[in-house]
Amino acid sequence: MTDHRTAILLIHCPDREGIVHSVTGFLSSNGGNILYLDQHTDSTEKVFFMRVEWSLEGFIIPSDEIQGRFDECCGERYEMSYRLYFSDYVPKMAIFVSKMSHCLYDLLARYTAGEWKVNIPLIISNHPDMRRVADMFGIPYYEFSVNKDTREELAPKMLDLLRENGVDFLVLARYMQIVPDLLIDAFPNRIINIHHSFLPAFVGAKPYHAAYERGVKLIGATAHYVTSVLDAGPIIGQDIARISHKNTVDDLVRKGKDLEKIVLSHAVEKHLARKILVYKNKTIIFS
Amino acid sequence: MTDHRTAILLIHCPDREGIVHSVTGFLSSNGGNILYLDQHTDSTEKVFFMRVEWSLEGFIIPSDEIQGRFDECCGERYEMSYRLYFSDYVPKMAIFVSKMSHCLYDLLARYTAGEWKVNIPLIISNHPDMRRVADMFGIPYYEFSVNKDTREELAPKMLDLLRENGVDFLVLARYMQIVPDLLIDAFPNRIINIHHSFLPAFVGAKPYHAAYERGVKLIGATAHYVTSVLDAGPIIGQDIARISHKNTVDDLVRKGKDLEKIVLSHAVEKHLARKILVYKNKTIIFS
Amino acid sequence: MTDHRTAILLIHCPDREGIVHSVTGFLSSNGGNILYLDQHTDSTEKVFFMRVEWSLEGFIIPSDEIQGRFDECCGERYEMSYRLYFSDYVPKMAIFVSKMSHCLYDLLARYTAGEWKVNIPLIISNHPDMRRVADMFGIPYYEFSVNKDTREELAPKMLDLLRENGVDFLVLARYMQIVPDLLIDAFPNRIINIHHSFLPAFVGAKPYHAAYERGVKLIGATAHYVTSVLDAGPIIGQDIARISHKNTVDDLVRKGKDLEKIVLSHAVEKHLARKILVYKNKTIIFS
Amino acid sequence: MTDHRTAILLIHCPDREGIVHSVTGFLSSNGGNILYLDQHTDSTEKVFFMRVEWSLEGFIIPSDEIQGRFDECCGERYEMSYRLYFSDYVPKMAIFVSKMSHCLYDLLARYTAGEWKVNIPLIISNHPDMRRVADMFGIPYYEFSVNKDTREELAPKMLDLLRENGVDFLVLARYMQIVPDLLIDAFPNRIINIHHSFLPAFVGAKPYHAAYERGVKLIGATAHYVTSVLDAGPIIGQDIARISHKNTVDDLVRKGKDLEKIVLSHAVEKHLARKILVYKNKTIIFS
Repeated sequence: MTDHRTAILLIHCPDREGIVHSVTGFLSSNGGNILYLDQHTDSTEKVFFMRVEWSLEGFIIPSDEIQGRFDECCGERYEMSYRLYFSDYVPKMAIFVSKMSHCLYDLLARYTAGEWKVNIPLIISNHPDMRRVADMFGIPYYEFSVNKDTREELAPKMLDLLRENGVDFLVLARYMQIVPDLLIDAFPNRIINIHHSFLPAFVGAKPYHAAYERGVKLIGATAHYVTSVLDAGPIIGQDIARISHKNTVDDLVRKGKDLEKIVLSHAVEKHLARKILVYKNKTIIFS
Repeated sequence: MTDHRTAILLIHCPDREGIVHSVTGFLSSNGGNILYLDQHTDSTEKVFFMRVEWSLEGFIIPSDEIQGRFDECCGERYEMSYRLYFSDYVPKMAIFVSKMSHCLYDLLARYTAGEWKVNIPLIISNHPDMRRVADMFGIPYYEFSVNKDTREELAPKMLDLLRENGVDFLVLARYMQIVPDLLIDAFPNRIINIHHSFLPAFVGAKPYHAAYERGVKLIGATAHYVTSVLDAGPIIGQDIARISHKNTVDDLVRKGKDLEKIVLSHAVEKHLARKILVYKNKTIIFS
Repeated sequence: MTDHRTAILLIHCPDREGIVHSVTGFLSSNGGNILYLDQHTDSTEKVFFMRVEWSLEGFIIPSDEIQGRFDECCGERYEMSYRLYFSDYVPKMAIFVSKMSHCLYDLLARYTAGEWKVNIPLIISNHPDMRRVADMFGIPYYEFSVNKDTREELAPKMLDLLRENGVDFLVLARYMQIVPDLLIDAFPNRIINIHHSFLPAFVGAKPYHAAYERGVKLIGATAHYVTSVLDAGPIIGQDIARISHKNTVDDLVRKGKDLEKIVLSHAVEKHLARKILVYKNKTIIFS
Repeated sequence: MTDHRTAILLIHCPDREGIVHSVTGFLSSNGGNILYLDQHTDSTEKVFFMRVEWSLEGFIIPSDEIQGRFDECCGERYEMSYRLYFSDYVPKMAIFVSKMSHCLYDLLARYTAGEWKVNIPLIISNHPDMRRVADMFGIPYYEFSVNKDTREELAPKMLDLLRENGVDFLVLARYMQIVPDLLIDAFPNRIINIHHSFLPAFVGAKPYHAAYERGVKLIGATAHYVTSVLDAGPIIGQDIARISHKNTVDDLVRKGKDLEKIVLSHAVEKHLARKILVYKNKTIIFS
């Protein structure tokens, strides 16, 4: 909403008294006008979480010195884990896709409409089907013949391609292959997947079939960061839709698509806004 | 909505042509004015389901002969499983409760306000705590010292008590004990339970703790008929509420209570309205 | 779900006994296997509504004689208003758009993915902005310089264009001009609009600003058929999203887009499935 | 969640730099361990809002001196409007009711179960019907023969009664009379009403009838603070339920009751938790 350059800190550290006072003191005393501040204390884990965003207009510390100065003032003192972001950096996002287009269109429509501050240098797929869509939007499309036999062997090539393109994070837009550990390790908490169930119900393949069999009255979709345990990573967002006995598996698949694309895009939006902190396989989502 | 006496048929049978025509012919030709008709065909299972309600005012078949005459006309011909209900029969419902009052109050408030056409001859509990609430509403309260050792031994006594009171169906209003098979067999698809998760996620004990641990962004509640497999019976209704990282387990418990009581009461409402058909561990819920 | 040809009847008439029996008799006696039957009686208005779909495989009446034969059997007898549809007819839909792309992309993505049995022969706009999107999807784009002075004058030209293209119904995908009566009269209950509020709240321009001013905690979107009274036509579908004091008008606009596109596309889906009956400015939506 | 005594500040003031730093400094330097801190800046109005809660265990300023000391440190400097609350004060709530019991039961069930830290010294009604419920829960019931002729005349007597009972805030649990200005002025932003529509749609009497007439697909309920303009006060919370063409006005009334009671009770909960700030006819609801 603000047009000038801002900086964002996402912090977590052991809970102690005085943290907010120290951080706001660091900003105020250096001319930083705070635009956003939210904090959360997990009283069970005794951990403190904070997101603060301030204007760099009038802030007297040069951008490349902020980290060092913040470390001195607060970071070391409170044993903080933190990340510093600048609003004028435009992150690079790679999309992984298989045969279905609904999530892909939703991502690309927002991208093309300028809703998000992001670049999409490439789309990767294990099938040729979505090349047509990539071409429509003018985005390079790379096909890898991934299956369970070739997965590990192709991983280094994929990683090279991602690195050459300076990719910051991956979005799996109904990509129907397991992600190799090599990629997961290279992008920790930076691979966003959409799973077509309200996790932890219906982990794994064919969740709509399983939902139909069980006779549930709600279906769901879950966006989460990918970890090495299938469908078990930190949950970013979930939503549901009502179904009835009249709905076939095909109806569930069709209704589910609308859930999937919206839940995935909202997760990407939160990620881009630097509003997600991951701690011990859970997310803190700042509002 | 109608004040005069009506009859309701809940039917399922193998799908064949002409069923609706035959049933409506039976009613029309005997002076039955149809007030409600809904049908569903499960095209996978090739099974036909129907609910029809008609006014008995002007219907020329005496009530005690309807079943015989319907058998001749339709029941045998189409190999129907069906049940016939009359709107002036007031069913008797037993409530089972443990220590929590929220579902109990919700059921009794609707009962006392005359929202439902039902009688509640008794409340059964494994704890003394809710006697106070039963007394406020003037309903007999029976305490059984149920635990995993005494469960089977006490089951026949419970069943006797239910039978003496002419109970038609049971509602488990956060009753925290496993129901013995003796009762399940005596009340097939007539024991309604509320489980405090969106099944099939978080089966069993302490679902809110499990939900908290997993870091879900939605919690749920599920009303279902009790079968001999724990939390695996036919689902009647489900609903969810949004939660965030700010919510403790206590918050989940508190938010969940509102879900539980509404989902349970809605299930009871559907049951009383004869709008639920069970087939192969799933429900058809007529609207 | 069925691949062979089907026929659909959407019927309303004064409520009388025996209608379902007569209609099902007509179908059964002519070899029509019923795939879907739903009915509704408005007991206040004393009007009967019905949707029935049957397979034409084995149906002994030729398609072009069904209407005549149905009139003889049922239509005249019960004073029915009805429409007969065939599943192999692919309707033609025109999209009207102004400057925003979100609804347009959502419609075209479903269309291109083959989700809907529809043709889109043209897109009409009062601005040049969306030509780019039309071109991506290869759909002819016509720009009319519509404003409140030219609206009436341009209406006949628009109507000619729609007729030349054999258009069956119109979808206003955030088209920000009032539709002239000439078009409304030519397409009665066949112009679907998306309004960016939960009608009847916030009729007219700038509903998100009005919602922000009022301090509501929910925003909504409403799909409805266009009539000559602004934002007052029969409502097809509505949905809402939660907002908070943290949300600016821009946030409301952004969140609203996701509501708008989904609610609009679902309305188009129901329309295409011949599941909507309009009666006295209200809709019956079959499930 | 904490058992020891806490203090809460609800603050708003013109937005300036350094406010968070000053407030947290005041607390830290006096030994106050912050348990909750949330803030919001309305960038349009240039107003800053804050809620902070801290433990009084170890806080070195005596409770009766906190206000003075805070004024010196922060209040005057930043031209703050603020309120100071202590967690051990149990507020007194009066319930106003007419003939319907659903909201009343929901409030009293939570009260009796000890969910809320509140006292309910009396129930006031314009009808005798709910005396029975008041008696069940052992709460004094006062009947005033309020109608539009007697309303103003009875207002001073009501106010006296409320004052004698030390009432802090009022909850209108479907009280069907207009509240006289005398009471509104005596309890500014301390009278919570539940209106049975999603405001601003269907202001005034018989909203369910109006919703039925308009053919909406959603009904709603809105909790708000009462001001002298009917149904136009600051909105606290809203929720909706889906309806269909099958639903009669009676169905809407019945479904609406579940919305009303939950929305009202959640609003009371937020009020009791000191999580609501009112500014210019809107609410800031802290999470």
